[in-house]
Amino acid sequence: MDLTADDITWTDPTCPVARILDLVGDRWSLLIVRDAMDGARSFTDFVQRTGVARNILTERLRRLTEHGILERVPATTGRRQVYALTEVGRDLFPVVVAMRQWGERHAFRDGEPRSVLVDRTGASVATIWPVDSRGDRVDVDSTEVVHPR
Amino acid sequence: MDLTADDITWTDPTCPVARILDLVGDRWSLLIVRDAMDGARSFTDFVQRTGVARNILTERLRRLTEHGILERVPATTGRRQVYALTEVGRDLFPVVVAMRQWGERHAFRDGEPRSVLVDRTGASVATIWPVDSRGDRVDVDSTEVVHPR
Repeated sequence: MDLTADDITWTDPTCPVARILDLVGDRWSLLIVRDAMDGARSFTDFVQRTGVARNILTERLRRLTEHGILERVPATTGRRQVYALTEVGRDLFPVVVAMRQWGERHAFRDGEPRSVLVDRTGASVATIWPVDSRGDRVDVDSTEVVHPR
Repeated sequence: MDLTADDITWTDPTCPVARILDLVGDRWSLLIVRDAMDGARSFTDFVQRTGVARNILTERLRRLTEHGILERVPATTGRRQVYALTEVGRDLFPVVVAMRQWGERHAFRDGEPRSVLVDRTGASVATIWPVDSRGDRVDVDSTEVVHPR
């Protein structure tokens, strides 16, 4: 896998946020990652879950595979190939969870039905929030981006 | 603000991840949010930082304002209006931090210069990771999405 291939043109080369957005920063790529985390594996799985057009899905699966976020693996039955998250792709879990939790807080009216992320005991996953080295919550005001010289 | 306006067509109405992606799930919107967190306020600030085309920026600023993520406020000097994150927009902080940290881990070669997010003491913000109710780390394998009936 080579996430830093020379043929990627970075929008803002020194910014890690901009780099992840260049790699997976579009709605369909992130929905595909979400579905892969939720068990989707075959082309048909992804079509059915996202409702994405087949040509867009083909292109996004190719890009996600090229960037080392998905990999093609043999299906457990038959000779088909399916898609699985790589370790790098699985490492997007905090990103997807943070997005989910913001969505839960702000994108639903009271009482609207929504899916829930639960742990093995069936309890909701705790809210994640950045903290400093002492464990105190930090936010936009108490942090600063230091740019390289 | 009305994030759940009737005129939004949700890609996957019961999924909080899909809803946030319908609201801010494109590269430019998230770069604009990033820049607003880093102090950008005026149209010119956003043009200079992202390099985004002016027509795209105009459209994204309008959408982010409509969705209640940015608001127009008077500039401290003059009669100009500038853009500020609302509370809902500031609440995207964990999403941007999670993206940044993935970018740091996977999208840079060793030694490539990159920006750093620091707290008031100058220390890097700690890595965020979802945990269960006991504080143990969870991941794709130890969690499950429960869909509404």
